[in-house]
Amino acid sequence: KDIVVAVTGENMEAMKGIIQKYQHQRISLVEAGVTRHRSIFNGLKALAEDQPDSKLSKPEVVIIHDAVRPFVEEDVLLKVVTAAKEYGAAGAIRPLVSTVISPSADGCLDHSLERARHRASEMPQAFLFDVIYEAYQQCSDYDLEFGTECLQLALKYGHIKAKLVEGSPDLWKVTYKRDLYAAESIIKERISQHICLVMDTKDENHVGHRLEEVLKDELNHVKVMSRLPCHTGRDLDQIMSEQCYSYVCVNVMTSDFEEIRKLVNMLEETNLSILYPVVVISVYFLDYKSVPFDQKMENLMQIREYAKEVKKRNILLCGLLIYYPQVGKILVSDLCSVHYSCKDENVSC
Amino acid sequence: KDIVVAVTGENMEAMKGIIQKYQHQRISLVEAGVTRHRSIFNGLKALAEDQPDSKLSKPEVVIIHDAVRPFVEEDVLLKVVTAAKEYGAAGAIRPLVSTVISPSADGCLDHSLERARHRASEMPQAFLFDVIYEAYQQCSDYDLEFGTECLQLALKYGHIKAKLVEGSPDLWKVTYKRDLYAAESIIKERISQHICLVMDTKDENHVGHRLEEVLKDELNHVKVMSRLPCHTGRDLDQIMSEQCYSYVCVNVMTSDFEEIRKLVNMLEETNLSILYPVVVISVYFLDYKSVPFDQKMENLMQIREYAKEVKKRNILLCGLLIYYPQVGKILVSDLCSVHYSCKDENVSC
Repeated sequence: KDIVVAVTGENMEAMKGIIQKYQHQRISLVEAGVTRHRSIFNGLKALAEDQPDSKLSKPEVVIIHDAVRPFVEEDVLLKVVTAAKEYGAAGAIRPLVSTVISPSADGCLDHSLERARHRASEMPQAFLFDVIYEAYQQCSDYDLEFGTECLQLALKYGHIKAKLVEGSPDLWKVTYKRDLYAAESIIKERISQHICLVMDTKDENHVGHRLEEVLKDELNHVKVMSRLPCHTGRDLDQIMSEQCYSYVCVNVMTSDFEEIRKLVNMLEETNLSILYPVVVISVYFLDYKSVPFDQKMENLMQIREYAKEVKKRNILLCGLLIYYPQVGKILVSDLCSVHYSCKDENVSC
Repeated sequence: KDIVVAVTGENMEAMKGIIQKYQHQRISLVEAGVTRHRSIFNGLKALAEDQPDSKLSKPEVVIIHDAVRPFVEEDVLLKVVTAAKEYGAAGAIRPLVSTVISPSADGCLDHSLERARHRASEMPQAFLFDVIYEAYQQCSDYDLEFGTECLQLALKYGHIKAKLVEGSPDLWKVTYKRDLYAAESIIKERISQHICLVMDTKDENHVGHRLEEVLKDELNHVKVMSRLPCHTGRDLDQIMSEQCYSYVCVNVMTSDFEEIRKLVNMLEETNLSILYPVVVISVYFLDYKSVPFDQKMENLMQIREYAKEVKKRNILLCGLLIYYPQVGKILVSDLCSVHYSCKDENVSC
């Protein structure tokens, strides 16, 4: 319902700028403390206090998460919340990658811990709000200064034994410079697994639907949208909310280049392409008997000019003109390879 | 002196192929065990037993390392070996990134460990050979099956308290797919920080030496080589052993294109370019009064043809012709930008 972000004073303005730019509606900001626990406490206070001008109200369950773990899935959020409702507290864990040891005062090995008996405590964690808020209200200055574990506070002050939930490896903390590259590789992989097929035909036998089958075999997320005149508005809104970076538009009914211009304009407004290139392939299926070749080529040259223009805004547009009746299996795989080469080489063709 | 690698049976042939391909001289292979400790024990046995046909002999100190930690620096090896000589055992450690907890049998939090009092035990570790070998000979099947910590064996069976040495963050275990991207980013960054300047002049006032100064301000490793006729052989051998991916050749004495062909041939033989593109920029400084322009352009066209050819072997060659006396500060920065654009765009110009 609400998201409270603890931000240091020096980053407050930058964060406000981000919220405004992306029009986030559910985010409130609080000032971060000098330690992890003090920051979290500040966030909880903002949720607890029913101030007259505040849009926040006390929740039943609160999730605590680290911004440096950006790849949190809805699935694990659901698991920790469900477990928190039952147990009072719950947190994601991961197997240890290295053995943990305890050093003696002189910098030598005192003892090592059995790796199989221990886990790394990760985020997200979820709590019944009253459990964790009361724990923070009771905890000592030492806890606030040197503690690192919210589950431990729930145990120490609320006598709640938190339920531990297996998290995914992608929950790791983005800590070092190399982790930024690792994070980028995950984002790129997800983007490359997600494609929107926009079709203006419902004919099940049309090659556009065979393309859909082929793509579904290869990719995780293939979304099919209709662009029939009767529900243009609703479907296109949905397309834009998908955060998808790859589009294949199958045009059967129209040879009108204006349609693709509209889609590209809408994509531009989403600001998606600020982060990564958006790829749009517009495919025109046309009966070669009914439309003269010269006229279509002229259209395609227009797309080429338009592609050069939108490339500056990081949208890679590709126009593909296919004449009936030479449409078959080979075509479908050709379409796939055009898509991949756009992606790989960052070119518009 | 010797490197013993424990390899599973299924990977034995592949590993032999790698050793042959890169002509590693100091590597012996042993069969890996089913657990970490059994693999290490097999490696130690190979070093302990003086078999008549073995080229291995028992060392004073042995270093144990994980192949999944490829970014080990000589510095940390030296530190653990020195400490092992003094203490009998030593290992690299890192601060914990996540809090470590101990779960109860029912999957709930039993207790959490204070993060500041614990460390992640990493590799490399070093031991007096007799200490660790005797520990492995004494240790139980349970240790060999479920143990994960060599320092613990030295403590338990040899009563040696290992010295702990702070390691670098780059010692992390390359574990998940994302770690491969992180590892690649580190390799690429190192490559981009390392350049060889090959010069055929010792004239300190020459612009080639000013280029050296500019590069040294920007990069970590700038190696300057001489290609004066008197010590060609020795210096070029040294160039090849540098594992450097970026070369700028400053040609003042000669306008002879054959020289660069020799260098490129030698680079090809090193097989460096199998992994990443090797960039070679050959710069010719020529007095415009003494050499006719047409003749030099012809030379440059030859380089262009040659560049196309070697690009297929992943060597990106760029020829740059500079006429006196228009050589000044601007030129030096131009050279730098040519180098960067070669690197970034993977093109030969």
